[in-house]
Amino acid sequence: MIQKYPSALLENAVNELAKLPGIGRKTALRLALHTLKKSPEEVSLLGQSVVDLRNKVNYCRVCHNICDEEVCELCNNPNRDSTLICVVENIKEVMAIESTGQFHGLYHVLGGIISPMDGIGPNDLQITSLIQRTQSGAINEIILALSSTMEGDTTNFYIYRKLAGLNVKISVIARGISVGDEIEYADEITLGRSILNRTDFNDSFKI
Amino acid sequence: MIQKYPSALLENAVNELAKLPGIGRKTALRLALHTLKKSPEEVSLLGQSVVDLRNKVNYCRVCHNICDEEVCELCNNPNRDSTLICVVENIKEVMAIESTGQFHGLYHVLGGIISPMDGIGPNDLQITSLIQRTQSGAINEIILALSSTMEGDTTNFYIYRKLAGLNVKISVIARGISVGDEIEYADEITLGRSILNRTDFNDSFKI
Repeated sequence: MIQKYPSALLENAVNELAKLPGIGRKTALRLALHTLKKSPEEVSLLGQSVVDLRNKVNYCRVCHNICDEEVCELCNNPNRDSTLICVVENIKEVMAIESTGQFHGLYHVLGGIISPMDGIGPNDLQITSLIQRTQSGAINEIILALSSTMEGDTTNFYIYRKLAGLNVKISVIARGISVGDEIEYADEITLGRSILNRTDFNDSFKI
Repeated sequence: MIQKYPSALLENAVNELAKLPGIGRKTALRLALHTLKKSPEEVSLLGQSVVDLRNKVNYCRVCHNICDEEVCELCNNPNRDSTLICVVENIKEVMAIESTGQFHGLYHVLGGIISPMDGIGPNDLQITSLIQRTQSGAINEIILALSSTMEGDTTNFYIYRKLAGLNVKISVIARGISVGDEIEYADEITLGRSILNRTDFNDSFKI
């Protein structure tokens, strides 16, 4: 049954909110009605923050991470190891890896992964600039940190081939049993890889 | 661990989005990053729709439902039974009851229920205007359709006492076993009420 809204303004707000990922019409209605309980100033701050983010956002011209300046804080930080580049799909992964505190190199944000089903090819991603960066800079190692999916593996392989001629070590983040996971529930491929890529016992306590 | 955001704009948008009910910081980040994939026009429409809703919304001066005019469509509709008023907590319940198609009277939106724990007393709600409406109009029956909670029952009782002197029938929506529910899982009070308020077998197929 099509829900009838008592107000066109409400219907419009619900329609717009329901376009957000993971927000259905019921949640959108709840959010819209919630704003009615807030002061106009608070709601204005909310609306403005999203519009500002979209309109004023910058992308670092080196690593394509989101930032407020022309070059991001990470790329500008002299304490980071600029010979080591971690290739990630999106901004979110930069934040996730940063919060581990285990990586001190720089990043390269592709802006997606190769996915023919979604019409995303290599030219839609920041792969050319990765090659240029590798060619021009003194890069020792490139770590591929993409999702362990078919699209991620395809992208890994594409980048690997493109960088093959250049004098740079290419590595991939470890696949294995997640910390806290029980072995009996792990799939065979992950379990197999975790045995092939086993680490020295003394190294295994390093985090 | 406190998440570090690569951009102050992003952090601000996440902070604002995370104030919405049911939206945590992770979801807020996902929503904020989602807007970066949309055109500035689309994001502007989203922001504007919420701000417009808050700033331009009207409340019907008769029933206090949200509306675009001074008096809402329902109150203005000559085909609705104006002698029958259904008292509800919020706009959402009006929409829920309307979508059943079983009610053809008018509404009265209280704007909340009496809840001393949240500091909401009778004077914060549209109870006085309900009394005035009952006094001035030719109202035959008032249906109390509040939640079956302690606060709902308190509010029901308060309204019942306030309207007691007036010549109007006061009824409460039926409490009973939800359609599709199994009796063995029903609580005793609901089950008890469903037996006390049993309906004629022939009436029970009416929806």
